[in-house]
Amino acid sequence: MKSYTLGEIAKLLDVQLIGDDQVVINGLGTLSGAGAQQLSFLSNPAYIDQLSSCKASAVIISEKFSDICPTNKLISLAPYVTFAKASALFDLVPFPISRIHPTAIVHDSARLAEGVSVAANTVIGADVFIGANSEVGAGITIGEGSTLGENCKLHNGVTLYHKVSLGSNVIIHSGAIIGADGFGFAFDGKKSIKIHQLGSVRIADDVEIGAGTTIDRGTIEDTVIGLGVKIDNQVQIGHNCTIGNHTVICGCVAIAGSVRIGEYCLMGGASGAVGHISIADKVQVSAMSLVSSSITEAGMYSSGTGHMKTSLWKKLIVRFKQLDSIAKRLKELEKSTDKE
Amino acid sequence: MKSYTLGEIAKLLDVQLIGDDQVVINGLGTLSGAGAQQLSFLSNPAYIDQLSSCKASAVIISEKFSDICPTNKLISLAPYVTFAKASALFDLVPFPISRIHPTAIVHDSARLAEGVSVAANTVIGADVFIGANSEVGAGITIGEGSTLGENCKLHNGVTLYHKVSLGSNVIIHSGAIIGADGFGFAFDGKKSIKIHQLGSVRIADDVEIGAGTTIDRGTIEDTVIGLGVKIDNQVQIGHNCTIGNHTVICGCVAIAGSVRIGEYCLMGGASGAVGHISIADKVQVSAMSLVSSSITEAGMYSSGTGHMKTSLWKKLIVRFKQLDSIAKRLKELEKSTDKE
Amino acid sequence: MKSYTLGEIAKLLDVQLIGDDQVVINGLGTLSGAGAQQLSFLSNPAYIDQLSSCKASAVIISEKFSDICPTNKLISLAPYVTFAKASALFDLVPFPISRIHPTAIVHDSARLAEGVSVAANTVIGADVFIGANSEVGAGITIGEGSTLGENCKLHNGVTLYHKVSLGSNVIIHSGAIIGADGFGFAFDGKKSIKIHQLGSVRIADDVEIGAGTTIDRGTIEDTVIGLGVKIDNQVQIGHNCTIGNHTVICGCVAIAGSVRIGEYCLMGGASGAVGHISIADKVQVSAMSLVSSSITEAGMYSSGTGHMKTSLWKKLIVRFKQLDSIAKRLKELEKSTDKE
Repeated sequence: MKSYTLGEIAKLLDVQLIGDDQVVINGLGTLSGAGAQQLSFLSNPAYIDQLSSCKASAVIISEKFSDICPTNKLISLAPYVTFAKASALFDLVPFPISRIHPTAIVHDSARLAEGVSVAANTVIGADVFIGANSEVGAGITIGEGSTLGENCKLHNGVTLYHKVSLGSNVIIHSGAIIGADGFGFAFDGKKSIKIHQLGSVRIADDVEIGAGTTIDRGTIEDTVIGLGVKIDNQVQIGHNCTIGNHTVICGCVAIAGSVRIGEYCLMGGASGAVGHISIADKVQVSAMSLVSSSITEAGMYSSGTGHMKTSLWKKLIVRFKQLDSIAKRLKELEKSTDKE
Repeated sequence: MKSYTLGEIAKLLDVQLIGDDQVVINGLGTLSGAGAQQLSFLSNPAYIDQLSSCKASAVIISEKFSDICPTNKLISLAPYVTFAKASALFDLVPFPISRIHPTAIVHDSARLAEGVSVAANTVIGADVFIGANSEVGAGITIGEGSTLGENCKLHNGVTLYHKVSLGSNVIIHSGAIIGADGFGFAFDGKKSIKIHQLGSVRIADDVEIGAGTTIDRGTIEDTVIGLGVKIDNQVQIGHNCTIGNHTVICGCVAIAGSVRIGEYCLMGGASGAVGHISIADKVQVSAMSLVSSSITEAGMYSSGTGHMKTSLWKKLIVRFKQLDSIAKRLKELEKSTDKE
Repeated sequence: MKSYTLGEIAKLLDVQLIGDDQVVINGLGTLSGAGAQQLSFLSNPAYIDQLSSCKASAVIISEKFSDICPTNKLISLAPYVTFAKASALFDLVPFPISRIHPTAIVHDSARLAEGVSVAANTVIGADVFIGANSEVGAGITIGEGSTLGENCKLHNGVTLYHKVSLGSNVIIHSGAIIGADGFGFAFDGKKSIKIHQLGSVRIADDVEIGAGTTIDRGTIEDTVIGLGVKIDNQVQIGHNCTIGNHTVICGCVAIAGSVRIGEYCLMGGASGAVGHISIADKVQVSAMSLVSSSITEAGMYSSGTGHMKTSLWKKLIVRFKQLDSIAKRLKELEKSTDKE
């Protein structure tokens, strides 16, 4: 458990403290769940009613709501961002124990910069370069010629194929697989003939990639993930895709091959995009929606029907199949009524 | 191959035998596929016609259909449940060969109770506790401070992050990843700032988790999986979720963060739930349906259109986009016809 | 980098060369991206305008368009297939370094045919057989009694459970898990009772399986993947399924248990099929469509609504729920108008 005085926290987060700077904080809590010695936050005004009964020793809050906060407060223009920064102060993720674990298998030609740690049973191939202070977990394989920037963190069980390139400050969670073959075949009339995938994957700085996510290598050119992109668990990104800077991709999203997604987009959970399309900057796609053609204009997009009782739904999907007939019959009726 | 006399099986399953207790049974078969020396079952009455030609040496059957069964029979009130119990008798999953494999890397501070086996290349971190008779496969990593109850079985290649807690009799299949960071970021107007995930994952007794499934650690509090929950392959469960006791989650389900699912629910394959909603007890969601708002009442729920020929579908989705106009024009027509 | 003269390439691909057979080719490029010393191809006529400015040293092209190609050309009846074959010439996937890596743990009873390589930290169980020239990557586990044919390639981090059988020329990408327990439980009114999965998985020759894909073992009989089937990343195939020869399954497809898919089918990305249904030969299912009942006729099938602006979509899903009422009111109106 880490602990700080509230005064120390205010300095570290660079926010104004109203209250007792000597109170000791040893963790974070939600407004409803926090106890003494914990720091909470109010970001969503929907939770404002929880302030009065909140047992936290301090609350991160905007100036606007400061007056109604009954305890110590840290005044922030963006309480959720300040909370994010505070979360880093209390992170207890274990530090790597040894530099290069004796069971790690590092090829002679691989170069590891200063401060790199490599955990047990990890296999690092020929001509790999790993930048300063990067942390490579256990049971990882890094293929020939791949490169990592500085301060990367690969959690246990990540797989990088050959010639994959990561920028700095890249975090990759367990089970993610970067650089497997794109899914490319030419059908010769009888069988599928493999198109060897000669490109690779380039990942820019400050990217985070979730557990079990797969990003395929390009066919000829590279699959490219832009600066600051955040990708959740079990996302599939096909070969030849380009994901624009700062785009956020939620869990279980399926992006087919050769898709170009703009900057600052948000792909909702389990949404998807068909192949060979473009999506403009600042597009938001809602959960489980399929983008089936290019989107050229920023905005929010959805597909699907929304959920309902199955008994109702069964009637409606019968009607859905009659929609063309319904539309035509309505047109007829309008004509005949007009005439009268 | 294991074998039993039918009399032994009847005793082990605690059911009534009508027929020859000396016949030797060495496996299970379907009604249509079983041969001699095999035990079959009739649960779904749709298969009743297969009874007459069934070559099994015995059939698990309810009393109601007992008369029309031409061979030895085990009489059960719940033939499918009896079949499930019988399946355990013939399971040939290999036993672990050695207790602690010499290549396993177990931290000095980890405590392994009696009867624990750990297979090759598995890495067990500091302060881990593993309960009696638990079986830990090969190539697994168990993070610092995680705990397992008794009789757990972790198949090869499972990843537990730090401080994950499992109850007893928990089965986890290969490639499952428990306790990776939840997907939490605060957007500061330019970039996404990581919210460190300070909670963990708590999994109750008798839970089974499928291959490649990911369950994220909570932001502040824990992600919680209830008693007897069964989770299939490639399911994603976001941070801060609570899954109620005995709920069943089929393959490829995507559950966003902070979702609360009740007890005895069934999430159909590839269905999903958006974040921050609640689902009542005994809700069943059909395959590939999206739960886009809270469900407060037990019952069956669906979304989607059902599949159809693409040629028809192309017409209908054009009409779907005209639905608002169709509804308004119909209203107009009703008004004008009323007047006449 | 590999290089060939254009004359050598023409011979290797068995196509006619029009142009300079001495020009050196050291890679492939797209029509718009290729530079000197690269070979490009024209398959889709939509890209024909890029021919005139293409900088490639040669282009694979059909005879029909040969005249308008300004550089050296390889004349092919099927340029995309010829391109696929050319891609194999330039593949730089690293060769396995050692035959059996000293850290590999191979059970005494396992038999490895000539030319087999096994990389670091891989664990091979009792009674496994691996056919000639198969390449087994690092960090793999192969369960007791599994068999591989000749020329298979298992990328790093693949998991085969016990008694899985692969044909020859099978490629499996990292993180794929073959033979985990099917998702079978009998509900006894209070809890789910595990049905032990006694079958296994049989995979025919020439199959490719993508990263993170899971194929479950059968309950009693086997799950079967046919000849030449190509499966992309993160696909889930439930227990007891049969996938017909040469069928192609795109990324993130979810196939429930006991589904029978015909030959030469195409399951689009993130599509799915509910359990216990059949799909005829030569069926194509579009992206994110759910096959919710058997399909008996070849053709293309779809479900869903297509994407649209969320503002419009919100209106339409309200109307969707009124569809039954709309249809009935239209009928009424037609009746009343008829009478007049």
